[in-house]
Amino acid sequence: MANVLILGAGVMGSALAVPAADNGHAVRLVGTHLDREIVATLKRPGGIHPKLDAPLPGSVEPLDIGQLARSHVEAADAIVVGVSSPGIEWAVDRLSALMSSSKPVAFVTKGLASWGDEVRTYAETVPEALDRIPRASFIGIGGPCIARELANRWPTASVYACSDITLAERLARLMATPCYRLSASDDVTGVEACAALKNFFAIGVSAMQTRHTDAIHGGAATKNPTAAVFNQAAREMALIALHIGGRRDTAFDLAGIGDLHVTVGGGRNSRLGHALGRGRTVSAVMASELAGETVEGIDTALALGGLVRCAAPADLPLAAAIVDAVLEDAPFAFDFAHLGLREG
Amino acid sequence: MANVLILGAGVMGSALAVPAADNGHAVRLVGTHLDREIVATLKRPGGIHPKLDAPLPGSVEPLDIGQLARSHVEAADAIVVGVSSPGIEWAVDRLSALMSSSKPVAFVTKGLASWGDEVRTYAETVPEALDRIPRASFIGIGGPCIARELANRWPTASVYACSDITLAERLARLMATPCYRLSASDDVTGVEACAALKNFFAIGVSAMQTRHTDAIHGGAATKNPTAAVFNQAAREMALIALHIGGRRDTAFDLAGIGDLHVTVGGGRNSRLGHALGRGRTVSAVMASELAGETVEGIDTALALGGLVRCAAPADLPLAAAIVDAVLEDAPFAFDFAHLGLREG
Repeated sequence: MANVLILGAGVMGSALAVPAADNGHAVRLVGTHLDREIVATLKRPGGIHPKLDAPLPGSVEPLDIGQLARSHVEAADAIVVGVSSPGIEWAVDRLSALMSSSKPVAFVTKGLASWGDEVRTYAETVPEALDRIPRASFIGIGGPCIARELANRWPTASVYACSDITLAERLARLMATPCYRLSASDDVTGVEACAALKNFFAIGVSAMQTRHTDAIHGGAATKNPTAAVFNQAAREMALIALHIGGRRDTAFDLAGIGDLHVTVGGGRNSRLGHALGRGRTVSAVMASELAGETVEGIDTALALGGLVRCAAPADLPLAAAIVDAVLEDAPFAFDFAHLGLREG
Repeated sequence: MANVLILGAGVMGSALAVPAADNGHAVRLVGTHLDREIVATLKRPGGIHPKLDAPLPGSVEPLDIGQLARSHVEAADAIVVGVSSPGIEWAVDRLSALMSSSKPVAFVTKGLASWGDEVRTYAETVPEALDRIPRASFIGIGGPCIARELANRWPTASVYACSDITLAERLARLMATPCYRLSASDDVTGVEACAALKNFFAIGVSAMQTRHTDAIHGGAATKNPTAAVFNQAAREMALIALHIGGRRDTAFDLAGIGDLHVTVGGGRNSRLGHALGRGRTVSAVMASELAGETVEGIDTALALGGLVRCAAPADLPLAAAIVDAVLEDAPFAFDFAHLGLREG
């Protein structure tokens, strides 16, 4: 039995408490300042997380933000940061204040940041901000995982990545259950890059599901264009992952095509893509049906803009179309002429 | 302008006449003995192919099986065999009788054959049967292409593969249009293997779309299991393609994941998979809703049985589950415990 501390009681942090508790570990689940109501609900007997439709195992101990103490951090064999990108500063701040020794810290948070001309992953920036976890203790979590399905114990596959693969494997063995199947990778940069890129490319693939509709078949989505663009997204994820310092093949596995598959299936990035496919603009969608929502693919587009615009047009045509839609608020215009053999 | 001869006036042969004619080539479209009615329809002014919902360009010349003459074969700059696997013998027989010099012959036909312990692709067996096309003139066509969508000029991407890549590129340049985007590859074995394997694996991925339904959300399909199995299918396609003599990366491009994406979206392999996911058996489905239909993934399962059963269970667990369902008529039973880290 191990001691697992999860920061963030939103959907993903809370969902990860389920396999951890199912494996018999002592699990503490700590809410952020945004999670006060959730934690209050979870503390009541039989309390059900409002977004997971499932009670957490009785052995999970929910804690409010103010209850997190140095002793909880010290006791943890592993720490899982289960917040989305707006919560990452809070998590880094709390860990900086309370951690006094290095230990493995896993992040589900997905994001890319641009530093001048350079695009970097959280795997590179977070350990710098959090000087008590060396880069080798940063574990990135990727792969196709809708939190609600994990919490309801539907079969789910994910990948844990760490530059020291034995650490990734050790945490994966702590967390894996019969329905939470985990691979390990040492390509933490590639996994982190793909985890962010899949949100971004899901916008473009989802746009194809509404762009070319078939009037003869009652406006049904055509399938050739979507498959062509899914494939192109995989190619471009691989190129960008490589450029950022990861490996090509990571894009063609769980963190890349696997997660892209699930992300195109639903969620905010996909909803934005569907609207763009119908000819609307990002600003119009963000001012109406997605008002107030965080669409992570937009943040990724902002971070990637410079890199994409420096690339040869034939290399990243799908990325360029998404970047233009976000940065210029232009209609989404992916040109299929960019696919296939060059003229010559 | 070139002279393109297409054998087979079924959906795929007829659909390929559209980009060829759009490029200004002289196109002859020759029906098999199964296509007599289609050819008669196409010969009438404004005649619409019954399965394509689109008229063919006026410059396409439809020919009945009895009209195919040596002069048509001699005049052709390229020959496209557009039949499905039951028609391959007819096509090889006709070409053997009428061809007197080597020329590029492209095949859309997808299939694997087992020769004792060995699994071989049509790219290996057809040139042997057709001694006037050396292996280097065999071009395999793969990628996500529903014929009806190609004929209606929806954006479509495909790959033309030949061991002599300049021949693949030359034919691709003859056929490519603004909405038919073509890549070239020299991995003809890999493309042919994936073209067959994607039908086979689509059965398993489609089974996931019905196996794990979510009662809380009105029986909707869960997404994590399907994405996990889509990803696993890609991994196993790569392993099998490599084993047969192709390249791994071919499975992660148009002929592999691209075509798998479209095949899971609909068609007979997908319908069989959906039924297996609900707990039915192959024999029951083939005796009722798919009675009389050719389900190509079943033939692939028969050809692959020996290879899959010799593999380590952890390498090809999805293939093994599909093979068992076909060969033993067993309930489809994919065990997620095979995914992820081995015990240790």
